[in-house]
Order: sequence, then C-alpha cells, then structure tokens
Amino acid sequence: MGSGGAALLDTLFGTQVLASVLGDRGRIQGMLDFEAALAEAEASLGVIPPDAALAIAAKCKAELFDPAELAEAAARAGNPAIPLIKSLTELVAAVDGEAARYVHWGATSQDVMDTGLVLQLRAALEAIKRDLDRLAATLAGRARVHRVTPIVGRTWLQHALPVTFGLKIAGWLDAVGRHQERMLALEPRLLVLQFGGAAGTLAALGDKGLDVADALAKKLQLGLPNMPWHSQRDRVVELGTVMGMLVGTLGKMARDVSLLMQTDVGEAAEPSGEGRGGSSTMPHKRNPVTSAAVLAAATEVPGLVATLIAAMVQEHERGLGGWHAEWTTLPRLVSVAAGALWLTANMMEGLEVDPARMRANLEATQGLIMAEAVTMALGSSLGRLAAHRKVEASCRKATEEGRHLKEVLAADAEIMAKLGPAALERLFEPTNYIGVAGAFIDRVLASSRT
Amino acid sequence: MGSGGAALLDTLFGTQVLASVLGDRGRIQGMLDFEAALAEAEASLGVIPPDAALAIAAKCKAELFDPAELAEAAARAGNPAIPLIKSLTELVAAVDGEAARYVHWGATSQDVMDTGLVLQLRAALEAIKRDLDRLAATLAGRARVHRVTPIVGRTWLQHALPVTFGLKIAGWLDAVGRHQERMLALEPRLLVLQFGGAAGTLAALGDKGLDVADALAKKLQLGLPNMPWHSQRDRVVELGTVMGMLVGTLGKMARDVSLLMQTDVGEAAEPSGEGRGGSSTMPHKRNPVTSAAVLAAATEVPGLVATLIAAMVQEHERGLGGWHAEWTTLPRLVSVAAGALWLTANMMEGLEVDPARMRANLEATQGLIMAEAVTMALGSSLGRLAAHRKVEASCRKATEEGRHLKEVLAADAEIMAKLGPAALERLFEPTNYIGVAGAFIDRVLASSRT
Amino acid sequence: MGSGGAALLDTLFGTQVLASVLGDRGRIQGMLDFEAALAEAEASLGVIPPDAALAIAAKCKAELFDPAELAEAAARAGNPAIPLIKSLTELVAAVDGEAARYVHWGATSQDVMDTGLVLQLRAALEAIKRDLDRLAATLAGRARVHRVTPIVGRTWLQHALPVTFGLKIAGWLDAVGRHQERMLALEPRLLVLQFGGAAGTLAALGDKGLDVADALAKKLQLGLPNMPWHSQRDRVVELGTVMGMLVGTLGKMARDVSLLMQTDVGEAAEPSGEGRGGSSTMPHKRNPVTSAAVLAAATEVPGLVATLIAAMVQEHERGLGGWHAEWTTLPRLVSVAAGALWLTANMMEGLEVDPARMRANLEATQGLIMAEAVTMALGSSLGRLAAHRKVEASCRKATEEGRHLKEVLAADAEIMAKLGPAALERLFEPTNYIGVAGAFIDRVLASSRT
Amino acid sequence: MGSGGAALLDTLFGTQVLASVLGDRGRIQGMLDFEAALAEAEASLGVIPPDAALAIAAKCKAELFDPAELAEAAARAGNPAIPLIKSLTELVAAVDGEAARYVHWGATSQDVMDTGLVLQLRAALEAIKRDLDRLAATLAGRARVHRVTPIVGRTWLQHALPVTFGLKIAGWLDAVGRHQERMLALEPRLLVLQFGGAAGTLAALGDKGLDVADALAKKLQLGLPNMPWHSQRDRVVELGTVMGMLVGTLGKMARDVSLLMQTDVGEAAEPSGEGRGGSSTMPHKRNPVTSAAVLAAATEVPGLVATLIAAMVQEHERGLGGWHAEWTTLPRLVSVAAGALWLTANMMEGLEVDPARMRANLEATQGLIMAEAVTMALGSSLGRLAAHRKVEASCRKATEEGRHLKEVLAADAEIMAKLGPAALERLFEPTNYIGVAGAFIDRVLASSRT
Repeated sequence: MGSGGAALLDTLFGTQVLASVLGDRGRIQGMLDFEAALAEAEASLGVIPPDAALAIAAKCKAELFDPAELAEAAARAGNPAIPLIKSLTELVAAVDGEAARYVHWGATSQDVMDTGLVLQLRAALEAIKRDLDRLAATLAGRARVHRVTPIVGRTWLQHALPVTFGLKIAGWLDAVGRHQERMLALEPRLLVLQFGGAAGTLAALGDKGLDVADALAKKLQLGLPNMPWHSQRDRVVELGTVMGMLVGTLGKMARDVSLLMQTDVGEAAEPSGEGRGGSSTMPHKRNPVTSAAVLAAATEVPGLVATLIAAMVQEHERGLGGWHAEWTTLPRLVSVAAGALWLTANMMEGLEVDPARMRANLEATQGLIMAEAVTMALGSSLGRLAAHRKVEASCRKATEEGRHLKEVLAADAEIMAKLGPAALERLFEPTNYIGVAGAFIDRVLASSRT
Repeated sequence: MGSGGAALLDTLFGTQVLASVLGDRGRIQGMLDFEAALAEAEASLGVIPPDAALAIAAKCKAELFDPAELAEAAARAGNPAIPLIKSLTELVAAVDGEAARYVHWGATSQDVMDTGLVLQLRAALEAIKRDLDRLAATLAGRARVHRVTPIVGRTWLQHALPVTFGLKIAGWLDAVGRHQERMLALEPRLLVLQFGGAAGTLAALGDKGLDVADALAKKLQLGLPNMPWHSQRDRVVELGTVMGMLVGTLGKMARDVSLLMQTDVGEAAEPSGEGRGGSSTMPHKRNPVTSAAVLAAATEVPGLVATLIAAMVQEHERGLGGWHAEWTTLPRLVSVAAGALWLTANMMEGLEVDPARMRANLEATQGLIMAEAVTMALGSSLGRLAAHRKVEASCRKATEEGRHLKEVLAADAEIMAKLGPAALERLFEPTNYIGVAGAFIDRVLASSRT
Repeated sequence: MGSGGAALLDTLFGTQVLASVLGDRGRIQGMLDFEAALAEAEASLGVIPPDAALAIAAKCKAELFDPAELAEAAARAGNPAIPLIKSLTELVAAVDGEAARYVHWGATSQDVMDTGLVLQLRAALEAIKRDLDRLAATLAGRARVHRVTPIVGRTWLQHALPVTFGLKIAGWLDAVGRHQERMLALEPRLLVLQFGGAAGTLAALGDKGLDVADALAKKLQLGLPNMPWHSQRDRVVELGTVMGMLVGTLGKMARDVSLLMQTDVGEAAEPSGEGRGGSSTMPHKRNPVTSAAVLAAATEVPGLVATLIAAMVQEHERGLGGWHAEWTTLPRLVSVAAGALWLTANMMEGLEVDPARMRANLEATQGLIMAEAVTMALGSSLGRLAAHRKVEASCRKATEEGRHLKEVLAADAEIMAKLGPAALERLFEPTNYIGVAGAFIDRVLASSRT
Repeated sequence: MGSGGAALLDTLFGTQVLASVLGDRGRIQGMLDFEAALAEAEASLGVIPPDAALAIAAKCKAELFDPAELAEAAARAGNPAIPLIKSLTELVAAVDGEAARYVHWGATSQDVMDTGLVLQLRAALEAIKRDLDRLAATLAGRARVHRVTPIVGRTWLQHALPVTFGLKIAGWLDAVGRHQERMLALEPRLLVLQFGGAAGTLAALGDKGLDVADALAKKLQLGLPNMPWHSQRDRVVELGTVMGMLVGTLGKMARDVSLLMQTDVGEAAEPSGEGRGGSSTMPHKRNPVTSAAVLAAATEVPGLVATLIAAMVQEHERGLGGWHAEWTTLPRLVSVAAGALWLTANMMEGLEVDPARMRANLEATQGLIMAEAVTMALGSSLGRLAAHRKVEASCRKATEEGRHLKEVLAADAEIMAKLGPAALERLFEPTNYIGVAGAFIDRVLASSRT
C-alpha cells in the first residue's frame, strides 16, 4: 500500500489503469528487462559468455523478487537497483556461479533504472495513445451529430452568442489532436536507451562500449542516443509536460461538462448508472463525479510538472536529489494523466445531451443574446459604433422593462426603417447566426486522426 | 499497492514512517471514529437511541472493511465515505436493524471525510513533533560541542570568512525552533471538527445541530469551529504550508551536508554503516543517500503546496475537483515531510565531523580568507574603501605569485607601518575572527525548546 | 517598465496598490533606511564618528539615486546593494571624505537587502491589514443583512439544500478572520533585523557586534533575531505562504461571485459602473471583470509560493540562486495578493444582490431541493435508509413526470400517513430548513475583529 | 515601472533582452498590427472600404497611445484591448469618420490580444533561437577543445571516475540540441492566427468569415488554425513548457559551473571583468554571479510553467481568470528564459578553464578514483563481484593507512599475479580509462545544428 492510501482512491481517479505498468512490479520488471537484454547483447559480442546470458535472462522475472525486501535494502543503498542486482546475482549464482560474475556487466544503477523507466513509459504511452484515439473518435462522432445543434456560447460565464454544441466539441477534439501530435513527436527523444556506466563513458567495457550500446538498444527496440543522458533530464521531463498539457485540456472539458450539468443549466450530464454520483443525504442529486476526478487531476498535475522541471538542475554526472525526485513524481504524473484520460473517454462516450434545454436556454435572455446579430445587421448602414450604441440602448430598455429585445426593436421606427419585420424575425433565429461554425468543425474533423 | 510504486521506495524516502496513520487503513479508521463518536454524541442528547450508538460503535473498526471493495464503489459514488457508510450500515443491520437506521444520522460525506482527516493529521502531527524535538535536541547538543570549531564560512559557494561549525548548526536549529512554534500555532485552527450536514446548516438535526456538534467535538477532543468549513480550506492548507517550509529547511541542511561531504571538501559525512551509500561499480564511494532523499523531498514539496493552494478555489458549499485534489496531495505532503524529517534526525544523530579537515580547508586559500580581517584592522586607520583597495591588491599579488597573503602583507612597508608582526600573526588565526558567533549560538540555544 | 509589461495591466490586477512600496523606489529606500540607521546605531556606540552618521544619513534618500544606472552596475556586481553602497559612498565623499569611510561599516550586502526588504514588507503588511479589515467589515455587514435571505446551497455545482446568503458570506468572513490571525502571528518572526556581516558572525565589528545589532534593531523598530538568517529563509517564505492562502480564499469568493453572476443564475453581480465589464461586441453583456482578475491571481500565486519554498534550499552561509529567486518572486506575490485583496474589498462593497432571483431559483427543481427535509422528516418514522429510498423514488417520479415533488408526495398514501398536509406544506418552505445557519453566522460575527 | 521593481534587477537577470518585444510597447504594437492587418484583409475582400483600411493602418503605431491611460481604462473594461480599440477608433475618427466605423470589424478582444501575443512571441522566438545557436556554437567549439581534457567525473557529488571536460560540455550541448528541435516543432502549432469573433463563429462576418481569416493569416504570415482556440490554450502553454525545460537545462549548466568554481574545486570560473562578482567586504572573492542569476531563473520557472498549465482549465468559449493569468505569466516566463539563455551564452563564451587543476583534483583521492578501472581489469580473471570485494578491501586499506591505492595494490601478491607493474601503471593514467567519451562527443557534434 502506498503511503498516501492511493489504493482506496485509485479507481475513483482512474489511476488503476496503469497500476500494473507503473507500480512496483512494473518497475522491477523494467529493470530486469534491461539486465536480461544487457547480458544478451554482451554475449552476442563476446563480452561475456553466451551461457552466462542465458542463465541471467532466466532469472529476470519480477515475480522472483520480493519488493518489501528490496525496499528495505534500497534505503541503505540509496536506490532500488543495487539490491535488485544483488538479489539477481544471488539467484543466478545459485544455479551458475560463473554466470553470476557477469550480471550487470559494465553498467551502472542509473542505466538500469532509467532504461527500465523508459520501457515502462513505452508501455504506458501505448495505453495512453489508445485511450486518446478512443476519446478522439468519440468526440469526432459527437461533433458530427451536433454540428448544428444550437447552444448558448458563453464567455466570462455570460451568455454571449449562439454557437453549436458541435463547435464546442470540435474545440476539445482539436486540442486532443495536437496532443496526439506531440506524443508522436517526443517518442524519438524519449524512447532511447540509457547506458553509460559509472560516469557516462562506458569505460568498463573498454573499446566495446558503443557496440554493446548499439546491440542493447536494438534488442530493447529503443533508440541509441548520442550519449548517455544521466543528468540531462529533458527527455523524460518532456513527457511530463505533454502529460500536464493533456490533463489541462481534459480539465477544460471537465469544467465545461460540470458547468453544463449545473442544475441551473442542465444542458448535458455525465452518464448515469446505478450508484453513480448519488449523494448520501440528498436523493435527488446526481453529482458530476467524473468531472470532479478529472478537475482534481488538473489541479494536481501543474505541481507535478513543476517538480520535474525543478528537478532538472542536476549535479555533474549524476544528480543528488533531483534525479530521486523523479522516481515518484513521473510515474504519479503519468498515472494521473492516464486515469483522467480514461475517465474522460468513458464520460464522453456516455455523455447525456439535452438539445431542448440548450434551445430553451438560448431564450433565457429574451433575445439579448442576438444583440450582436442585430448590431452587425445595423452596422453596415449605421456604422459599428453607432449601431453598438443603438442596440445597447435597446438592450437596456428591454432589460429594464422586462420585454423581449425583438419586441423593443420592433417598436423602434429608426431601426425598423433599416430592417423589415421578416429580417428582424430571421435575426432572432440562433441557427442563422452561427457564422462559419460548420466549416470550422469540418476542418477539425478533416485533420483529426480518427 | 499505490499507483506510483511507492512501497518499493517508501523506506528510502522515509515515507513508511506514517504509512499506518496516513494510508488506507488510517483513512478508513478516521472516518469510522467519526461515525462512532457521532452516534455516541447523538445518543447522549437523545437524538438517536442509546442502543443504536452502541451497536454502531461496535462496528467502527477498520479491519472489518475491505479497502479494495470500497475503492470499487467509491469510483461510482464519487467518494469513499458513501460506500463506507453503506457497508457500515449493513454490518450494523446484520446485528441490529433498528440501530442501522441511525448510522451517519444528520451528517454528510464531507463531515466524515474531513473530520477523519483531521484525526489522522493529529496523529501525524504528534509523530512529527516528536521527531522535530529529537532533531532539535541533537542539533543543540552538536552546536554546543562545535561552538568554537572553526570552519570555512562559504557564501556563493566561495570561501568567505571563518565561522564556527556550531554557528552553522545553530542556524539550522533556529529554523527548526520556528517550525515548532508554527506547528503549535496552527493546531487550534486545524484540529477542529467538520460537521455541517449536506449544505452546512445541520438542517437535518433540526434545532439540535449545535448541541450535537458541541458534544461530538468534545468526544473527539477537537475544537468546535465557528461554522463548517467545507469549502474554506485554509485550515488544512496551512498545515501543508508549514510542512512545505519544514522540508525547505531540511533540504537546506541536506544541501549543506552533501556539500560538506563532497570528496573535494570532506568536512562532514553522513553516518556510515553496512551497505550504506555504496556504489554498484565504484568500491571506494560513499554516497550521501540521506541527503539525496531529503533533497528529493525538498524538490517535490513545493509543487504539493502549490496544489493545495490552487485547490482552495472551491465552488459554493462544496468544491468540485479542488476538494478532491486534497485527498491524495495532503497525505502525500505530510508523509514526505515526516519521512524527510525522520531521515534528517537520524542523519544528524550519526553525522561524522572532521574538524581537522575543516581547519585544513581554512588554509586552502593561503590566507585570503582572512582578507576581511586584515581590511577591518586597516580600515580604522586607512578608511574602509582605501583598506579594501589595498588588501584587494595584496590578494591579487598573493594569487598571482602563488604566495601566502600573510607573506605578501609582511613585505608591504605601508601595511606594516600600521600593523606590527604580532598583530599580523594574530590576524591569521581564524578563531580570532569569528565575531559574536558564540553569543549567537547561546541565544539560539537559550530559546530552543530542547 | 517591467519586462512583463506590468504597467499596462497593473490597475486591472490591482497591483498598483503597492507599487510605490514594493517597486524599485521602495527597494532602494529600504536599503538606504538600513544604511542610515546603521550609521546612527554605530555612532551611538562610538563605533564610527557621530558626524559621519549625520553625513551618511543625509544622503540616504532614494531620489538621489538613478535606478537605471544601479541596474547596469548590479548586473556586474551580482546584486543591487553593491552599486548602491558605492554610489552612496561617493555622494557622502563629495561632502565629507572622512564620513565616506564609514558607509556600510561592518555590514554585508545581504544585511542591507534583507533588512530593506523587511522594511518594505512592514509597510506592505500595514496596507494589506487595512484592506483586510475593510473587507471583513463589509462582509460582516452583509452577513447581518442577509442573515435569513434564502439561497440555493450548491454542492458539486448541483442544487443541494437551501442555505442563507448570510451563511455563505459568513464562510468567507470566517476564513478572512483566520488570515488576520495568521498575519499577526507571523509578524514577530518576519519583522526582524538582518545583520551578520560577511559570513554571519559580525566579525568586522569586533566585540561590538551584538550591541550594534541591538541598537540598529531598536532604531528600525524591528525585532532582534537570535542570529542572522542569511540562508534560513522561512521568515520571509512564511509571509509568502500566508499571502498564498489569502489569495486562495479570495479566489474562492471570486469563484462564488462569478458563478452567482452567470446569466443562468443571476443571483448576484459585481458592482456596475460606466464602462465596467462591457464587451467590445456584445452590448448586453456585463463581464465579471473583478472576479476574473482575482481568479487570475489565484491561478498565479500557487506557483509563486512554490518558488519561494523551492528557493529555501540555500547553500551554506549565503545561497546561490535561491536567495536571488526571492528578489522578484516575493514582491510579485505580495503585490498580487494586495491587488486581489483591494479588488475584492471593492467588489464586496458594491456587490449587487438579487434576493428575488435567489428565491426563484430555489423553485427551479420543483421541490427536489427540499428532498432531504422530507427524508429527515420521514426518517424518524421509517429509518434513514428506507426514507432515503422512498424519497429517492418520489424524486425520480417527479422528474420523469415533470411534476412538483410536493404534488407527488401528496399523492402517496404511505407518506401522507406519516405527514399531514400542513406538515408537507411547511416542509417546502426553504426558510424552515436552514438548521442552525443563524447561530453559525452569529458565532462568526462574534469572533470577527470587525 | 513594474510592481515588482523589475527594472532595477532586469540587467542582472538578463530580462532586459526582450523588454522591448515583451513589454507594454510590444504588447500594444502587437495588437495594433492585428488591427491594421484585419482592416487590410477585410478591404481586400470588399468587407470594408479600401480607404478605411488605409486610414486605420495609418494610426496603428504604438507611440500614438499612452500606456498609463490605457491601463486606467483596462481596469474597468477587463482587458487592455477594449480601450485600445476605443482610442484607435477616436484617432481614426479625427481624420476619417467613415473609416472609424470599420475599426476592429468582426473581431473580439481576444482575437486582438492573442494574435498580438503570437506576434510578440514570434519575435521573441527569433531572438531566443539566435542565442540558442550562439550557445550551441560556443559549446561545440569548447567540446572540441576539451575532447580529451581529463576531469573528475562526479556522481552524488563524490569523485567517481575520470571523464573528459569535453564530454561534460557535450552533455550540455546535446540537451541544447533537443531544445532547438522542440522549438522548431512547436512553431506550426504556436504561430497561428487567433480569429473567431465574439464566440468563435465569426458570425459577424456572415459567410465571409473564413475568407477574411485566411487573408488575415497570410498578411500576418501566420498559420490558419482549424478553428479559433480562445479557450484551448495548449498552443501557448507548449511554448511555456519548452521555455521551462530550456531553463532547466541552463540551470544544470549553471549548477555545474558554480560547483566547478567552488574555492574547494577551482576547475573553471565565470568570465572575470572589472567589478564582476566582487564582494562588498571580501576583496579576494569572485562570485559566480551569472550562475546565481541562471539558478534563480531555474528556481522561478517551474512555478510559472505550473501556472500556465493550471490556467488551461478555462470556461466554455472564453476563460474567466485562466486566460487572464497568462497575460503576465507567459511574458514573464519567456523573458526569464531569454535572459537566462543570454547570460549563459555569455558565460560560456568567456568561461575560464583550468586543466591543471582538473588534473590535480584527479589525484585528490590518491588513486581511489581509478578503483573501477582496476576492478574491471581484475574482473575478467576474478569475476566482477570478487574483484569488487578485493578492490574494495584495498581501497579501505589505502584510506586507513593514508597510502596511494597504486602502492597498496602493488604490495598485494594476489593482485600482482594478475597484473604486471606496467599494466598497473597504465591503470592509473586517467586518460586510459575514459572509454568511448570521444565517440560520444563526436556523435553529439555530428548531430548538432552548429
């Protein structure tokens, strides 16, 4: 159990999604995968005997190791790799004393830990990209469905102009598409081997260092970096920043959904279901529990990203504290992001939409929301500022007298001289004033990877 | 197992110290303690039958509940309190159907969760204060021992003037003392009941609300706040900020120790011991593993504090996302702080100090470190600026010619006209130029709670 | 002009409030106040000639110095104190060459900068406390006025139960009161002298160090700390954390106001006024411009607090980078907090409240908001869970059939057997179900410093 | 003057570098460039008269506007664009009343502000890329020069193994190269038009919206995004994250330099120069003032990045607080990054390197630093673990007896049976144990854009 009681809350925040990949077991297996591949690469180049590689690889299975025991020794050693290698060596030695001599040959703790981490992150990225694709596909489908569904456009939390619900969704989708791009772009920088030996020169391997590195990278299907990056952490931090931005976007969606789901608005709602979002004391309530979890993620991740950037200031050939701060922060960040993404994808699949309420709310201001439409219609004859002042006055009059703006305008001779009754009527149909919303949606859909 | 693989690293970062208090088990028991006390308080006021309170309290034991099952249901409910109360009600109902009707009477999920949290934090604070006292006592003892041990004072990482090692320790201790003050000061604000019912009015208890609250607070030995603080989070955030500052101070100590422990400095070292800080490939190394863990904490906590402050912007009578962000962040922050404190206290108890190396390093600049002493001695006759320029020139000469400053000065007639040879000699004894370091140390010791 | 174009936005964010105190001029004057008092203190103890102190103090006026020139030299020197002292010395020397020798006698740059900062912060705190008092008085007055004004209590952004608007305000006020407490509590730790000389021993003053420190502290009306705190930064960081929490509370108020001001809710609004919050294109809009500015502050400050805590990890006797990070961050944080406070106090003074809309919105759910009232009324006869289920079913029925809950309940024989028609009627009057809201408000008012 | 007194410290932190681009003047001109191009684009499509565009463009010069006056009005309006447009309209009207009607035609405040910002950022990026190229070129040159200069490799601040100074520099350069890549990669996402009108539909332009957008983008040489991104902020936040990572890397360099520059190490030093880094009281000191400024930046930027990510959670079609938080944070972040980069590039150009001291420090552990070399040499015959234990024992003996490791080994018959005296001698020449450092450097240089 983690110190923060994470298990009890894991499902709520979706962080169980990557628990097997990013948890202790995944961390241990990542390191063992490195050790096995290292031995095999070295054997293939004659650096160690072929039999040794076989014997070593046979023991590189996480289930053979006890995390609690490793934890105890890690505290003394300063990292979990040292006791893991010690245990691995003992396991190998029990079978083949000669092979045991070649465990971890030429490598340093950070090689094991960083490459193991990269392997974990590769698996995590695959899962995240799948959920991102799923979310994109869902949003694309819904953007198509609601291409012309009118809804109040709200700026500063005030009714502004009509837009379409499809356009709102397209905005979400467009951002998701950019995160997909970023994730692909960072992979060549992130999915690389870490291998430098004690101080980054591979000195322990004599003149074979680069050959071993190359073979090892190939075996693990990772890129071979120009040089080790023990204390240059931008590769992993970049992933953190992209996760952070992804969660920022998810948080924006969750904010929108939770605002639409307000009792006072009621235009959309999280999927319902037995026991979902019920209150312990108010039987009529349905709480936006997914939005809350995703907004919590969006509140937490900025601090985690900041930690990773702060941790980049590492000393010389191996950091003191900075590197260590990554060990818990990066997995936590990726877990939280993956959880928020999974929750959001689920929510968007089941999102309940109420077009009738959307339409009704467009009427809530008694026509004021169409004020700009009227202003622009009048602007060509009166000039923008004059039209603005004219309509502003009519809006004030409508508000003060509790009347519909259309009615106030219809009673104004100056205005009616410019606009006929039919034109006035048309001006108050929201779907006549959504500009190029449809074209924007189409552009987003066309460029989406879905 | 937590999602970030915490267990494997818990001992290394010391976060196992509060695992039982702040983990799932502690969280569940905290909530159950609230439910038991609530029933008892209500029974004492005739709000519910006395027998019901007994039956309920009998089931308020964490070991009767399965965290994994609660976790599953919490995801649907939106918080862990709802399924916990449901399970508790079932457990009570199995024994006493009548009593089961009174479980959680008049309370809301947040009452349970927040009060439970406060109970956990009270226990955590006790442990933290004990370790803080232990650290203070250790530092006080060592400050006394090294009251006049000369050491290079370093500013901007450059040798500046001699100070004493005791003064450096007194600086640490002085800060620790302020944290002790802050911790005491925040308790009346933090250690209070949360009890407001669904929307903070205790409406469900009719006119008995305040009486129940008062009785409940007394039973839990918590303060009774002016009103519920469901969406006013400064009480718990304040603890977070004090934990953050504490870790900042611990990080400063760890930085100092790790710098003193550099191979290039060698004036102090973390306690040694079998397997401590050994390298997997360099047999001669001894790594500052505690400093690294504490510096990692100091890198992580600023982001956690930021999260808590950001989460304060909560909506109306219950926050959406902000409150939820606290659930993992605050326990993590307190755990990390407690761990760093425990590690630091251990480290300071066993810190190895090398006064001979400290003395030797004072000679590393061939007298330049005494330049200010010389400047001040000359200043009274030459004026500060003139003396500064004169000594600066002598320093440059000493550096360029690779000679000791004392020797250069002794060869300068103008200077020797102001200073005799004995005075010059005295000026180069570091312990003659430590000003009121001793008095400062005494002041710190006198005001320390140790 | 600052690099971030601050001036253009200063009024919008309220940061002009402390511009004269915390800007360049204030910073320079703070340092000069230290230099003047230092000379006077030293003269009073015979450390320097009395005439020198007079001559020095006469030149300690910010308007005699050119910030741009100091800026240029500060880049080379590494801090602004060095060129300031150099310029001061030249100014004094132009009048009295002898006196010029005693400028800055025995002090170090950080003594000047830190004490100057403390003097600036003292002035800033006075202004902040005044605005905090003003805000508290306004809130207290409004809490009294709206003691029984019913309003929808909203949890998770859903209608929950009725509360009173006075209770919501009392929640804000209660938090403000705690910040007032914290501000008083930190002053003895913050408002202290910094004076240690080059490495914190006051060695340059021989055995007069402590006497000078004491006299200097008295002259500046600051506390005398146990010892210098050059690299122990919790004193100033604590102020930062309290500012951060204050802004968190202000952000919560701004969030509440902006949500109440939604077109869809309309229960309260920021003060109106010529040109306030108008849109450039939508004549009918009124934007919550103060809320936006305060929420921006609440978004910015967590990162600033994090920076201050991160910066605490300072090296040995003077930090390298950590101290420097404070120079811009702390003034920015205090400015932003003071600005947000000033804006909020103004907003609360002019807040427009619409009790009729509050009442109308209580009806928006057709009685569902009174569901808990009904549940509790039935709970004593049916048991909490059974009543919960019963009412939940009635709520569902009311929702599905678009009927008022009261009507559905009235048609349910089982329920009417427990409740008579008069009781049912009473249950649907919101002000009958506000529990001890009034008592909570009174408790808050009684403990407020207003 | 900014509220944080920035001007006094601007040169010190290098933030004056982009002051003209990112300050008030730059912000105003950015907005005016948008307005001019908008009018021209609309005129080219017949949306407004050609003469109007000429009249409008003629007034789009920042020097015609008073920032202080705009600041005052911005506080009421809620943003600086509204008063700017009002002033612009008045200026145009004074010359051509007809043209004044077409100022800002069809656009919203955020269109102006965001596009203006993008134009500022484009100019900032050009300057940053130039300095990044300059830094890369300097590092490449120095990596070549020090390709085989031996230096102590330090891990955990302990001497580990010899590396070369060129390898350390290559590590810096490799990271710089990745930042160059990232900066190019983000440009297509960042350098795009913002243009959506009041709610993002361009409704005010009827069916001409997309044509105007296209023409406007071309005129400004910006990309045309799929749709407006008013409340989808990842485009600008991405720049913030890359700036954050860049500063993380610069901070790492500054940490390395300041550690190398410690009096206790003395292997490298910041460029010297009249008045650079002198102490006010210690004539012999030379402070790492650039490193301090860069480390301060590295302490500040994580919080700024966190703010930007937190601010992404924006409401509906325009954010409330989140967007506003960007206004000061992003320019500050870019300024700080550009300043730190400029300072670092300068520092690296003049970095003073002391190969003799590097070589001398390799001897500080009396041969212990070559322990791994010996272990590996013995490992092939004894096995890694046995060799490790053997050498560990010899190291302990050497330490305890204060002897050189080579001497201890030479006296050990078992070891000498495996190694002859010549081999032993060779093992203690550091440059014989730098592995493939040269190859790594070559790979970095080959892939560098320099």
